[in-house]
Amino acid sequence: MKFVTYDAGQGPRVGLLEGEQIFDVGFTGDMVAFIEAGAPIARREPVSGARLLAPLRPRSLRDFLAFEGHLKNAMGRLGRPIAPEWYTVPAYYKGLPDTVIGPEEEIPWPAYTERLDHELELAAIIGRRGKDIPKEEAMHYIFGYTIWNDVSARDVQTRELPVNMGPCKAKDWDGSNVLGPCIVTADEIDPGNLRMVVRVNGEVWGEDNSGHMHHTFADMIAYASQAQTLYPGEVFGSGTAAGGSGLELDRWLREGDVVELEIEGIGVLRNRIGKKQQKRGA
Amino acid sequence: MKFVTYDAGQGPRVGLLEGEQIFDVGFTGDMVAFIEAGAPIARREPVSGARLLAPLRPRSLRDFLAFEGHLKNAMGRLGRPIAPEWYTVPAYYKGLPDTVIGPEEEIPWPAYTERLDHELELAAIIGRRGKDIPKEEAMHYIFGYTIWNDVSARDVQTRELPVNMGPCKAKDWDGSNVLGPCIVTADEIDPGNLRMVVRVNGEVWGEDNSGHMHHTFADMIAYASQAQTLYPGEVFGSGTAAGGSGLELDRWLREGDVVELEIEGIGVLRNRIGKKQQKRGA
Repeated sequence: MKFVTYDAGQGPRVGLLEGEQIFDVGFTGDMVAFIEAGAPIARREPVSGARLLAPLRPRSLRDFLAFEGHLKNAMGRLGRPIAPEWYTVPAYYKGLPDTVIGPEEEIPWPAYTERLDHELELAAIIGRRGKDIPKEEAMHYIFGYTIWNDVSARDVQTRELPVNMGPCKAKDWDGSNVLGPCIVTADEIDPGNLRMVVRVNGEVWGEDNSGHMHHTFADMIAYASQAQTLYPGEVFGSGTAAGGSGLELDRWLREGDVVELEIEGIGVLRNRIGKKQQKRGA
Repeated sequence: MKFVTYDAGQGPRVGLLEGEQIFDVGFTGDMVAFIEAGAPIARREPVSGARLLAPLRPRSLRDFLAFEGHLKNAMGRLGRPIAPEWYTVPAYYKGLPDTVIGPEEEIPWPAYTERLDHELELAAIIGRRGKDIPKEEAMHYIFGYTIWNDVSARDVQTRELPVNMGPCKAKDWDGSNVLGPCIVTADEIDPGNLRMVVRVNGEVWGEDNSGHMHHTFADMIAYASQAQTLYPGEVFGSGTAAGGSGLELDRWLREGDVVELEIEGIGVLRNRIGKKQQKRGA
């Protein structure tokens, strides 16, 4: 099944997506509450005139770095080697849930960056509470999958990286994280074999397969849940697929560009890049 | 004024602290909702038999690295220099709000670390919504201050650091962030001149003054709010004061140790270190 959050004039509601048709499921509450409640479908009422929103406001955002191909390309451009620790530690940075926007929303271009970049990622959404989850059981904790465009300011990332705190303003601004267009339940797709594509203004910029993830979602869940409770609605990102960012190609987004991230079995996450914001007082 | 979250048998409630006495303020909702509502004191009813909880479940946790003294000590021990970028970029890592516990709670010791360490930090709590906040206006956005013990697993931090995503399991587990004992409103203290002390089992391990912050809270708010909305209940940490961690001294916590973090005008945040957890199946 595919679940969405939509607005047809009465505020955000949880819906079921079949083909192009949205059905209201009769749930009072947001997507995270819906997942917590066990995804109860109380009714199937066709909806018209709906706009899709981000499928959920995540309870948390962890973003891993699972694709060696991306890392090789990106670190090469940044003039840094891959750390040997990367191969054994499924490390992640954390995003800020309040920054999330959804499909077809304009991606804001902050005044403080000249180098805006997309990142094509597969994201898993935790479905039930758990702690110290063994790798062999980890996949049972995933409710479903969505697409994540982890928009990044590369010039800022270069400045922030040496402070060793992970990315800050390089990845944090209103609208810097795009999720959607829907959540596909875990029973419907194999996260170990999904074609992933980036198109900019209709041109293919990069292609990869989720099978190339060095750290799997099971690895990530086992690592993150050590001594720590995971909750429904937490989001785990795969990190960028190889070729999933412009950084790797030295090709850069411009105002008005349309970025489409497609992942097999989930759909297309499409957004237009906004005009560069003006500096305050400028 | 000093605000607390307490439990006297009826679940978490917002209270006012005067000396040792807690008064219920007659608010329905948690501390973040109370701050959003403008901290309305509807009544002052004395409460008995109350236990203090973490003053808030933060809407987000950003932790900066403002004290040069700590960084000099810590990076020296880790065998790394201070990056020149640190002096101009008020970088932060992000914590996970679900990990927060409060005063007098036992700090869990995860099975995966041998090197548990405290961190003495001053934390500011955002009081109102704002975006692109100029440095000169930034202090008006602070509701108040509390103490933050940013508990860290140093051996894990050493492994995770080279992956360049910031700290992950080095700082994320259930109970790894302690806040409290209360929130002192911004009108009552000068965050630029507060004595800060760590005691372990009654012995002073470190002392500093918040006046030694290289990046001020105003710097942090101006930096973080670029192109990004700040919300009531977001927490900004100062980073560790000089001498505020055992790492700097090569002195390490043991099971049962009592860690007290004291900041002038706020109070004492006291916690006992728990027994090291057993590995699953061990």
